[in-house]
Amino acid sequence: MKKKLQIIKIGGNIIDDDNALFEFLNLFSTISTDKILIHGGGKIATQIGNKLGIVQKMVDGRRITDAETLEVVTMVYAGLINKKIVALLQSLQTNAIGLSGADGNVILSKKRINNHIDYGFVGDIEKVENHFIQLLLEQEISPIFCAITHDKKGQLLNTNADTITAEIAIAMSDNYDVEVIYVFEKNGLLSNIDDENSVIKNIKIADIQLLKTKKIIAGGMLPKVDNIELLIKKGIKKVVLCKAEYIQNTTGQYFIGTIFEK
Amino acid sequence: MKKKLQIIKIGGNIIDDDNALFEFLNLFSTISTDKILIHGGGKIATQIGNKLGIVQKMVDGRRITDAETLEVVTMVYAGLINKKIVALLQSLQTNAIGLSGADGNVILSKKRINNHIDYGFVGDIEKVENHFIQLLLEQEISPIFCAITHDKKGQLLNTNADTITAEIAIAMSDNYDVEVIYVFEKNGLLSNIDDENSVIKNIKIADIQLLKTKKIIAGGMLPKVDNIELLIKKGIKKVVLCKAEYIQNTTGQYFIGTIFEK
Repeated sequence: MKKKLQIIKIGGNIIDDDNALFEFLNLFSTISTDKILIHGGGKIATQIGNKLGIVQKMVDGRRITDAETLEVVTMVYAGLINKKIVALLQSLQTNAIGLSGADGNVILSKKRINNHIDYGFVGDIEKVENHFIQLLLEQEISPIFCAITHDKKGQLLNTNADTITAEIAIAMSDNYDVEVIYVFEKNGLLSNIDDENSVIKNIKIADIQLLKTKKIIAGGMLPKVDNIELLIKKGIKKVVLCKAEYIQNTTGQYFIGTIFEK
Repeated sequence: MKKKLQIIKIGGNIIDDDNALFEFLNLFSTISTDKILIHGGGKIATQIGNKLGIVQKMVDGRRITDAETLEVVTMVYAGLINKKIVALLQSLQTNAIGLSGADGNVILSKKRINNHIDYGFVGDIEKVENHFIQLLLEQEISPIFCAITHDKKGQLLNTNADTITAEIAIAMSDNYDVEVIYVFEKNGLLSNIDDENSVIKNIKIADIQLLKTKKIIAGGMLPKVDNIELLIKKGIKKVVLCKAEYIQNTTGQYFIGTIFEK
């Protein structure tokens, strides 16, 4: 029987709001199973970039991580946000350690090469060093990952936090019974985007194609669900999409959210 | 017989100069004993603070770390500089992990209380978690510390890098034969401050008072030497003050620098 491990990802709606962040960390700290947190960056990096006079470059609607932008996201994600989260968790009696992918060589990436668009310093993950993560968990230390990885050639790389979550989950599933929770700003995957009560409670992998055809999974949800589909196909038994308040109890009677299973 | 451990501290003259930093890390990565690096912040935090419109507060010639300044130093020390160093070391085949004192609860501090001056979010160290540092060293991972600690009440604290170096050295000396190297911008402690060739090669603790009386140890050197004196009194056998190029070989014929011993 493998040990249970919860891997939780939070984004801007939690990170940008001090109260929401503190409430989330309070719940996170009460989870008694082994746990890992991955955080994106929210709006703070953009705000600080603007103040520093760094113009956000966009090509075909996509953000480009040039050298200046990489410095800002490294400061904000790996410095400001990551250490704030770790310090708050320590105050909540949860021993935590903040990591970028460079630390302990824990997430190795490759700079994205695209013949049409130069995304700049963006990384696609090649390898997760699950043994070091397991060593930390065995010390009852929760790893807190920011969305920065490296290429082992000295280059830090901006990396999608949903993808980091997925790749860590897959790597850890060798030795753990992994549950992944993507904390979401809505109640879950909604069948009617304007109705918070229209949560689809359970989605099987076989249902996803139809939901895409019906445009229920569309826009920004497409890459998110593709990530989730990959996770289930790689053997993760359960992936959850819910608001922060439900992370502690994804099986209970009062749970609201979407559960993806095989 | 205890295992040897080198603890090295670098400051602004290395951090602020990309070439000097890379050369230093190149040498650091070739040290075959267990090793720990502590880095200060250099001028980058001040430059970024200025760009962000944060006015540096001074009281009686001392910098004050207000909430805004703490955010800047957290970004720059724990984010920008720390992760840059870790990524470069990984490229040099040295497995490294970047740490603030909050990570793994590794350096616990107390906010400095002073009835005359409010220094702001400045920490005085209370405890170093040497077991976790040892665990990392046993995995052949070199810890890279920035000058940020925490109070375990959720507050990050700006902390003097020389003091962090000293407290880590004292804590690690329980289980290691520790040598401390403060990388210095000059050749060592000079008997004539205007003559780089006037290095005092060996200083015994008993000599320090006389050197202070003669004003050979004065100004900014006073807190540095007080730290060194504390280290020797606490049982560290050797503390070295030298330029970066000599860190690999502090015993050789061609070594230039000052060695403090009991």
